[in-house]
Amino acid sequence: MTQQKGFFYPRSATGSSSLLPSPPWYYAGDLLTVEYRTDPKLIADILPAPLTLAAEDPGAVALIWADWQSCGGSHEEMLDPVRAQYKEAFAVVRCSFEGRTYSRCIYIWVDKDFAMLRGIHQGYPKKFGSVHMTRPHPFAPAPQVAAGGKFGATLAAADRRLAEAVITLKGPSEKNGFVNGHPMAHHRWLPAIDGKGDAHAELIESSGAKFEGGQPFAASVDHFALFDSPTEELSHLKPKEIIGGYYRQIGVVWNGGKSLVPEIK
Amino acid sequence: MTQQKGFFYPRSATGSSSLLPSPPWYYAGDLLTVEYRTDPKLIADILPAPLTLAAEDPGAVALIWADWQSCGGSHEEMLDPVRAQYKEAFAVVRCSFEGRTYSRCIYIWVDKDFAMLRGIHQGYPKKFGSVHMTRPHPFAPAPQVAAGGKFGATLAAADRRLAEAVITLKGPSEKNGFVNGHPMAHHRWLPAIDGKGDAHAELIESSGAKFEGGQPFAASVDHFALFDSPTEELSHLKPKEIIGGYYRQIGVVWNGGKSLVPEIK
Amino acid sequence: MTQQKGFFYPRSATGSSSLLPSPPWYYAGDLLTVEYRTDPKLIADILPAPLTLAAEDPGAVALIWADWQSCGGSHEEMLDPVRAQYKEAFAVVRCSFEGRTYSRCIYIWVDKDFAMLRGIHQGYPKKFGSVHMTRPHPFAPAPQVAAGGKFGATLAAADRRLAEAVITLKGPSEKNGFVNGHPMAHHRWLPAIDGKGDAHAELIESSGAKFEGGQPFAASVDHFALFDSPTEELSHLKPKEIIGGYYRQIGVVWNGGKSLVPEIK
Amino acid sequence: MTQQKGFFYPRSATGSSSLLPSPPWYYAGDLLTVEYRTDPKLIADILPAPLTLAAEDPGAVALIWADWQSCGGSHEEMLDPVRAQYKEAFAVVRCSFEGRTYSRCIYIWVDKDFAMLRGIHQGYPKKFGSVHMTRPHPFAPAPQVAAGGKFGATLAAADRRLAEAVITLKGPSEKNGFVNGHPMAHHRWLPAIDGKGDAHAELIESSGAKFEGGQPFAASVDHFALFDSPTEELSHLKPKEIIGGYYRQIGVVWNGGKSLVPEIK
Repeated sequence: MTQQKGFFYPRSATGSSSLLPSPPWYYAGDLLTVEYRTDPKLIADILPAPLTLAAEDPGAVALIWADWQSCGGSHEEMLDPVRAQYKEAFAVVRCSFEGRTYSRCIYIWVDKDFAMLRGIHQGYPKKFGSVHMTRPHPFAPAPQVAAGGKFGATLAAADRRLAEAVITLKGPSEKNGFVNGHPMAHHRWLPAIDGKGDAHAELIESSGAKFEGGQPFAASVDHFALFDSPTEELSHLKPKEIIGGYYRQIGVVWNGGKSLVPEIK
Repeated sequence: MTQQKGFFYPRSATGSSSLLPSPPWYYAGDLLTVEYRTDPKLIADILPAPLTLAAEDPGAVALIWADWQSCGGSHEEMLDPVRAQYKEAFAVVRCSFEGRTYSRCIYIWVDKDFAMLRGIHQGYPKKFGSVHMTRPHPFAPAPQVAAGGKFGATLAAADRRLAEAVITLKGPSEKNGFVNGHPMAHHRWLPAIDGKGDAHAELIESSGAKFEGGQPFAASVDHFALFDSPTEELSHLKPKEIIGGYYRQIGVVWNGGKSLVPEIK
Repeated sequence: MTQQKGFFYPRSATGSSSLLPSPPWYYAGDLLTVEYRTDPKLIADILPAPLTLAAEDPGAVALIWADWQSCGGSHEEMLDPVRAQYKEAFAVVRCSFEGRTYSRCIYIWVDKDFAMLRGIHQGYPKKFGSVHMTRPHPFAPAPQVAAGGKFGATLAAADRRLAEAVITLKGPSEKNGFVNGHPMAHHRWLPAIDGKGDAHAELIESSGAKFEGGQPFAASVDHFALFDSPTEELSHLKPKEIIGGYYRQIGVVWNGGKSLVPEIK
Repeated sequence: MTQQKGFFYPRSATGSSSLLPSPPWYYAGDLLTVEYRTDPKLIADILPAPLTLAAEDPGAVALIWADWQSCGGSHEEMLDPVRAQYKEAFAVVRCSFEGRTYSRCIYIWVDKDFAMLRGIHQGYPKKFGSVHMTRPHPFAPAPQVAAGGKFGATLAAADRRLAEAVITLKGPSEKNGFVNGHPMAHHRWLPAIDGKGDAHAELIESSGAKFEGGQPFAASVDHFALFDSPTEELSHLKPKEIIGGYYRQIGVVWNGGKSLVPEIK
């Protein structure tokens, strides 16, 4: 037996087959966001202790599509892009813990294994999905990240469409929405192997360690639909009012977080 | 905030979107196994403390392909089979803990998200792969589970082929190999969110809670190859000697396990 | 320049990279069928000249799911099963040509490229889809091909679910339905490269060259639904009455057909 | 029976489920090209009559990766991007017909059904493959389309890697290579349904109907490898000398072509 290396599964003497390198992790990608309001009671229903509803605008939800290229410190995945590229769609709400406002991802679908395993580390409730977003490009028929650019985004899982949106960029915006603008507060759970509760239950906080961003654009939301599925609850968060759409290109580094509650009782 | 339900991610007030129902989990499928011997030093290199090499035949490896249908207690996934069917290929070795022999999965590739998340719970080091196995069927050109039946199996990940095998069934066998015949001893790790070691490191044991099996068949191994990949270490376990091939159809129930070492220091 | 070999694209001096070997093609697989009646006018709308409605029961439709392993004369694909296995779902109606009744596939979705190219040769209007069927297996929780066996089947394309069915086998049946029981009458079209009509428009007939079949089973249709999609017309063929369900395992050889109308004007 | 609409399969009374709209087809995307020289005898081997080797530099080959968004005249696919986006990798050589030089695609892999069916119309020998290319993006760790930008590209089919390249952009270039710079000369074949030769064999010419292009960049080829596969002949075209690498973003419209030889005997 030897000292095992590797950030997460699998570990080995060399660590070279670990699905994840140790953080920091580097990301570049595009975010397409639709923000809307639902009944705050539905948000409260989905916030586990010790989190409570955000003080302001507690029913706000952001559904965000992201098209990423990501890698570890060697950046080698960027040149074997099947290991770097993935897409995701995720729903974010706001919540409160010890008087501070946090963002929280409540549902998320990704399309690669490394993204799913990162989620286990970061407390994102990841499933697999099929995620598509119109990509900006200099030439027609593609849109550009500029006023008038029209982008579509869709999400499916288990062969059922779950969500779709079409937005048209209106012009520069100060922010890329507000729902996903706080540090994330996530639970990290590992159920006990004997089925009796959790072997590990922790509340953690994490943020980007470094951030670069292009000009955010505000957008009209021309079409937005959530569809029912026997395996999902996203559509339960029915839109009562659309807040707005956003589009932004960003580069971000993630380098861990900190425990807020190391052992939730 | 409310009491959250759901066995694992995501959890919600109803638990109905949890990727996994609570165990027991029910499986029916086919196993195609190739057993071989490699240098025991290579196995020792891959066994983390407190595990040690098995006392007998410590260099034995089983590479197993499995084609599963699985579900929770409601069995509803069986009738929406995109949620029930998955394939996997995995490498198993034997090891010793407190004088007892265990099996241990050291590498595994699956093709569905629910299988990957189950792996996090059970301590399987799951990645995504593309797994294919010839399926038995009553009519030509398909083989039957009978002497003379010829089956191929392949594994790829990140668009590279990692392993392939062709076996021909010879006749009934007492066992379906011996490497994967013990309770599994797996580490369950959750790296600390601040990057300093593990927040959770546990050694667990688990076995099938119920088992039905058809007649095992011994097989000649007509072709067996492991291929190098920059992301994998499977091919490092070079075959020095083929032990044999096996094929068996089984039904199994998994219902949790027990902690052998709840907190590995 | 040399004599090119290869049955279809690509052709080369050796023909060894052709996506398809020359027929005969060998298939083994399972068929899950739901037969129903729709308004015959809807069928007439979809039959191009020179075909006309079938004389008897002209509104009958079969929606068939099939899980295949297939290969050419060398059978080598069976041992590299990523090249042999595919699934499909297809809608079949009956029609009449020169006083004889034919079956005709009006819509079909497959999940492999070789199946799609075969379709171009055979006149099947193939698209890609995601097709799933519960598979029979000797052990629970899987069903067996026997009275009481419960099977689900689903179809999706472009990330939208298009059809789903659940059937329960009742007992042996004389036939595996009647809609797909005639020689197929298919159009083979190749649009002109200058966009003016078709460069090739032919009506062909084809049947299996050899057939083996297990016991057909009649089934109750517990659930059957067709879903709208902006890219599909399958759901336009609304069920007015369910005729019945069927399940059968078969082996079949396809070895070409004959021209009924070599040049349709 | 009614007049059928729809450009290609399937056709129906409305044509609304046809996998392809009628041309023109609109494309925006990025091209990553590696040009090299192989033995001209290998090219001659792959050119069917009436084509002959190009007069100049007849052993030149371009292996091109492309990341596309494409649509028909309504542009509706752009907002349901699962129907617009696809990637492809293809090998192009030059040839001669009646004293004029043409480009010709000899092997091509795509990842969507609509791209495959377009290929049948245009005479591209399309198979399915898994194609990946590093994407330019404004932020690190992604490269930009600028001197120093480093891009990787890979191709796999049937779970085997077939080709990979890494290039580094050096600076602006007059052309985006020369091998793919002529009108395409392609054979359109449809094998006879009775297996005796071809029902349709035509030589066609086609070009883009409209073209916009960004600044081409010349690139060093840091890594280039072709891998053997039992189903492919691409690696037979062994590189004797690398000519160079290129990267360019383009927008193009395709609107049919013309018959050079309507019936090849």
